[in-house]
Amino acid sequence: MLVSHLPNVRYLSGFTGSNALPLVSPKKSVLYTDPRYDFQAAVECDCSVKVMTGSTWTDAMKDIARKRYSRLALEAERVSHQQWLGASSVLGKAVKLAGVGALADRLRMVKSGEEIDLIRRSVKLASKVYEKAIRKVKPETTEVALAAEIDFQMRKLGASGPSFPTIVAAGERSALPHAQPMNESVGRDRLLLVDMGACLDGYASDMTRMAHLGRPTQQAADLHSAVLEAQLAAIGAIRAGVAASKVDEAARRSLKKRKLDKAFMHSTGHGLGLEIHEGPRIGRTSEDTLEAGMVITIEPGAYIEGFGGVRIEDTILVTETGAEILTPTAKELLVLEQ
Amino acid sequence: MLVSHLPNVRYLSGFTGSNALPLVSPKKSVLYTDPRYDFQAAVECDCSVKVMTGSTWTDAMKDIARKRYSRLALEAERVSHQQWLGASSVLGKAVKLAGVGALADRLRMVKSGEEIDLIRRSVKLASKVYEKAIRKVKPETTEVALAAEIDFQMRKLGASGPSFPTIVAAGERSALPHAQPMNESVGRDRLLLVDMGACLDGYASDMTRMAHLGRPTQQAADLHSAVLEAQLAAIGAIRAGVAASKVDEAARRSLKKRKLDKAFMHSTGHGLGLEIHEGPRIGRTSEDTLEAGMVITIEPGAYIEGFGGVRIEDTILVTETGAEILTPTAKELLVLEQ
Repeated sequence: MLVSHLPNVRYLSGFTGSNALPLVSPKKSVLYTDPRYDFQAAVECDCSVKVMTGSTWTDAMKDIARKRYSRLALEAERVSHQQWLGASSVLGKAVKLAGVGALADRLRMVKSGEEIDLIRRSVKLASKVYEKAIRKVKPETTEVALAAEIDFQMRKLGASGPSFPTIVAAGERSALPHAQPMNESVGRDRLLLVDMGACLDGYASDMTRMAHLGRPTQQAADLHSAVLEAQLAAIGAIRAGVAASKVDEAARRSLKKRKLDKAFMHSTGHGLGLEIHEGPRIGRTSEDTLEAGMVITIEPGAYIEGFGGVRIEDTILVTETGAEILTPTAKELLVLEQ
Repeated sequence: MLVSHLPNVRYLSGFTGSNALPLVSPKKSVLYTDPRYDFQAAVECDCSVKVMTGSTWTDAMKDIARKRYSRLALEAERVSHQQWLGASSVLGKAVKLAGVGALADRLRMVKSGEEIDLIRRSVKLASKVYEKAIRKVKPETTEVALAAEIDFQMRKLGASGPSFPTIVAAGERSALPHAQPMNESVGRDRLLLVDMGACLDGYASDMTRMAHLGRPTQQAADLHSAVLEAQLAAIGAIRAGVAASKVDEAARRSLKKRKLDKAFMHSTGHGLGLEIHEGPRIGRTSEDTLEAGMVITIEPGAYIEGFGGVRIEDTILVTETGAEILTPTAKELLVLEQ
């Protein structure tokens, strides 16, 4: 199998650069890369490294053609049709191409102890930055300035950057599940949603917390406590062996009791690691089953158009007996004085 | 033709979201998207919009199957093999699939007046941020802190972010053409390379400038003036109708006179616009010809292992009679007092 999706490349070979194709075979593995990564690949990878000077894809195929394999598997969702045709033309009829789906991605779902440690560090870094940044918010702070401040502090603490574009959404805008920060001040007497994560040594974290500028209205406080209840219900359902769809169901059932099930229109969570979104999916139609060592987010929300939305999200480790919440930040609605 | 590469989608339809497939046909065009973009697509696009609730790709194919076309073109370099197979299976034998290369990408090479204005604004924003940030650098400033400060200021001025990860590389590290900023101070008596650009209203800018902490040595000053000479030589070669490879050659010939041609191991430049790297390629083997309205970078460099490197880069508009340098920042080696 020739692996081409970069997170899979990194997972299987240790290579952290931007261009490499590891060939995994029952006999001997080899990693194809280009001259930029000559030295780096040799240091990072245990397998042998071949540096190609032309197109890495075409040159790798030419090399594979000489190996007399009868079959070669490619990641059909990650390889362009053009690349597939190129492979097919170089390899000829002697080698049968087989498309495989998320084979390597699935290996990544259960994390090793080392990976869990890396995620723990990424989670802690993000929490530290959030806790400091949120305390400095004034009504006149713009969403963009708060997002940029968060990104800046994550970088200063060693993150290579945010694990996804930081979301800061105040007031009505918090009702948009994937709002982009605007050049508008967060204002007074409104909800403030921050959804953020760091990328540290390649591993992602992901958290969402809610603050309120000034004393919350009953509606804001009720919305927050309903979502928190749903989040705790979902976390309570986590355990190795449980269907991911059951965890999603726990969040929805809890929101339904408050008549908020229709206000929650996305899935409850997702796996994370080398990618911010990876398996397992924690949603209504997910066919994944939780296993000890999976790291997932639990992030139910409720969004009221014209008023605002609440989402509460932790990064969580699935264990044999339950869940370990990795995110240390308190989940109460944080009231910021104006 | 069903367009799938997002910058091409935006260029052809005006849609700025993250999921849409415009079907461009001699009769009537339609844009397929998902429920998140219902409202946004209707506002941004002139063509009719169809909101699909399942997989956008599969649902679009089902809709296309009902239209009785005999041929459908797909962007073979941008469509996964899996998507191609899916299209083929839904459309059946009645519709012949044709793979096309960078057809829509090529349309984007010559910019409209409106696009040039957007790039001008992006360029000015980046220059403004650079000029302010570089003056604040102290020997103890880390590369990461300077990069993060630049990104922060770009965001505050309205950019959605950097157009690529900002490069800050001091001393020996400036000899690595694509260095990542490190958590190390920039130090004293060394070269300091900053390569950066903004993404503003979707359009990229790109610039590289050199500073020196403390009085430059003769070697640093000579390296800088050699690269500046090469950059000016390449700019002097720009005109509509000229082969892009000739512009590359002008930079190389100039460096050869200083025996630095082997110290310049990347290409001289690239087009930019909705993407930070797009056509035309300004390199040795480029087959592109410059046309008025193309916007390109000119960025020769010379890299001496163990000492440091110099790169000087402007964003440039190709005109009928020559080149308009859009980047306003002075190109001298900026000497920062320690």
